[in-house]
Amino acid sequence: MDGYIGWALAQKQLYLGNKVFGIDNFSRRNNVKEMLSDSAIPIESMGKRIRKIKEVYGERIEFYEGDLTDSSFTNDIVKKSCPDAIVHLAEQPSAPFSMIDQEHCISTHQNNVIGNLNLIYSMKNYAPNTHLIKLGTMGEYGYDPGFDIPEGFFEIEYRGKKATVPYPKMAGSWYHWTKVHDSNNIMFACKVWGLKSTDIMQGIVYGTRLKDIPSYIYQPTRFDFDEAFGTVVNRYCAQAVIGHNLTVYGQGGQTRGFLALEDSVQCISLLIEKPPEEENYRVVNQFDEQYDVTNLAQRVKKISESKNLEVEIDNVENPRAEKEMHYYKADHKKLKDLGFKATRSIDEEINYIIDDLLPHRDRISKYKNSILKQIKWKTAEKISPILNK
Amino acid sequence: MDGYIGWALAQKQLYLGNKVFGIDNFSRRNNVKEMLSDSAIPIESMGKRIRKIKEVYGERIEFYEGDLTDSSFTNDIVKKSCPDAIVHLAEQPSAPFSMIDQEHCISTHQNNVIGNLNLIYSMKNYAPNTHLIKLGTMGEYGYDPGFDIPEGFFEIEYRGKKATVPYPKMAGSWYHWTKVHDSNNIMFACKVWGLKSTDIMQGIVYGTRLKDIPSYIYQPTRFDFDEAFGTVVNRYCAQAVIGHNLTVYGQGGQTRGFLALEDSVQCISLLIEKPPEEENYRVVNQFDEQYDVTNLAQRVKKISESKNLEVEIDNVENPRAEKEMHYYKADHKKLKDLGFKATRSIDEEINYIIDDLLPHRDRISKYKNSILKQIKWKTAEKISPILNK
Repeated sequence: MDGYIGWALAQKQLYLGNKVFGIDNFSRRNNVKEMLSDSAIPIESMGKRIRKIKEVYGERIEFYEGDLTDSSFTNDIVKKSCPDAIVHLAEQPSAPFSMIDQEHCISTHQNNVIGNLNLIYSMKNYAPNTHLIKLGTMGEYGYDPGFDIPEGFFEIEYRGKKATVPYPKMAGSWYHWTKVHDSNNIMFACKVWGLKSTDIMQGIVYGTRLKDIPSYIYQPTRFDFDEAFGTVVNRYCAQAVIGHNLTVYGQGGQTRGFLALEDSVQCISLLIEKPPEEENYRVVNQFDEQYDVTNLAQRVKKISESKNLEVEIDNVENPRAEKEMHYYKADHKKLKDLGFKATRSIDEEINYIIDDLLPHRDRISKYKNSILKQIKWKTAEKISPILNK
Repeated sequence: MDGYIGWALAQKQLYLGNKVFGIDNFSRRNNVKEMLSDSAIPIESMGKRIRKIKEVYGERIEFYEGDLTDSSFTNDIVKKSCPDAIVHLAEQPSAPFSMIDQEHCISTHQNNVIGNLNLIYSMKNYAPNTHLIKLGTMGEYGYDPGFDIPEGFFEIEYRGKKATVPYPKMAGSWYHWTKVHDSNNIMFACKVWGLKSTDIMQGIVYGTRLKDIPSYIYQPTRFDFDEAFGTVVNRYCAQAVIGHNLTVYGQGGQTRGFLALEDSVQCISLLIEKPPEEENYRVVNQFDEQYDVTNLAQRVKKISESKNLEVEIDNVENPRAEKEMHYYKADHKKLKDLGFKATRSIDEEINYIIDDLLPHRDRISKYKNSILKQIKWKTAEKISPILNK
């Protein structure tokens, strides 16, 4: 509950009148420290956060420090809370962090895969009717499969027979693969035990605000801008406010689905409200619009300039293994059908981000070396053509 | 190297004149004990095994006790040996064992997924040109995808665009899913680091003998028949020799690819000899013929009767989550193209298995309760139609 989305979502759910059980092992705070960085927007300790929450919402929040990889902790908390829905955000969420070395690859698998298994087993044993909402990523599909990306499953024909099957996964980092492993494990748990789950393939999240909640009760969520934990729009905005070049990786044609923090929280709240009915394993692609990373840099540059911030775009060497120009078209219809409508345009959101970061220029400057440490993941010279996507 | 295939393969490789570095953590011996069973064919301790091997082959073998999940052990052994090929058989190989409970699910993931990650990282760091031969399973594809199963990748059309993509995986147990996770992780390592790997999707193995190696130097490999570690043909043969009904799960139309131990060892040896050339990630389906489990029971019954063993077929309640009648047709062309030819017919092999087990009737009888403990994995009442395969 202490992470970027978790803390915003907890407040949204409290504001909507629901009861929230939060857990966290504080790995995000520790991992960002390891990157020699910190949240651009200052955040309180969990103790202070909870005290302030209780002043507004009373006892509708409970927080437990612990780790999903600890099976007795996970079993206890699921048994004790037996909630209507569990939103599972407790994963190491950074691709670069997972690619640092052997230790980070293994710890990402440990945290994500083993934690997720403990959670689904505890649901099987103590909360079999709870709706599991699991945060996966659009990156599970890969970014250049060569054709459109559906929501989870698709019907195809092969040698004269048609069948509906899971869309093949082609992830691009250890982190992304752990999410694929989790999705596969959840799909199987839904099959053998009949668990009910929504597996969210989420786009890249950006933003600082939740508009519904009055600012006198909203406690800001963290905002990372380091190479590992800062997502691209957020990183560009942090660069812009300190006059750092906007660092576009390679040619910059990398196209992804994006959504605002506000809308991520809106979508998850919608899914909590509307669990799957006919199907017990539901996959949704959760993003608003597709952009390439050059287009985003241009938007940030333009909006920055309107605020008299001078900023240039710099195409730096791409540390990742990814195509820089590729076809990309992903479905994202299911959430719209459930009622999702984007809160505001990306330009408005970028505008707010920059406004919210400007008071924290000094903090960002202090940690600016964390923006471009350049964890590199490609060492292959020659690979099978089939893998070249 | 202490397992069913590993011990046979080590001897084959020594016989062929190669040097063998073996490792094992003896988990198979311990896990079969946990099932309150033992190998039907008595086997020696590793100490004695190695002493006898050295009498024949001198110092061409080295053995190290250790665990792939221990990264410093794995790094050390790969660095020290820097072999032409690594055959990775060091996985918990039982689907029922992985389905016992939370602890067994997690330990199977720990052993298989984390062990495999340590191995590929140690190869990246210390043996980047070594050929990794990884034992996966035909079960990674699932057994009822609704159309034919290719070898790893297939070309399909979706919304007017064609692409060659990984075949979607639809495994049926935690064990099978760990193999999917491993395959995905290896495919990615081949992509980013250029590692060279053959990922074997192996059918179900049966048999006791290796015909090339003279019996005065061949030390038998283990032969399990308990519910978890006994594969179906081996389990039927063990039942036959003690007059136990042959227990067919459910309707018995479950169709799988099968191959003899002899042929598994032959195929792996062939792959060691012929690493992939143009592609650096090669998937092969390794089996000889397809059979359904009723057909196999009938073969075992017939051959048993020819040896005056009375045996009946009993359709018992199916403890697994699987279709009992389904379409199944899997390609298995690549190994044949490399020169694989089955050593003998399945009926000849069943004949030898029964002959080899008859002297050990008393051992099998002693542990006969382990054959049908019935680890059950399906609890779901109603699931999404899409998962019902």
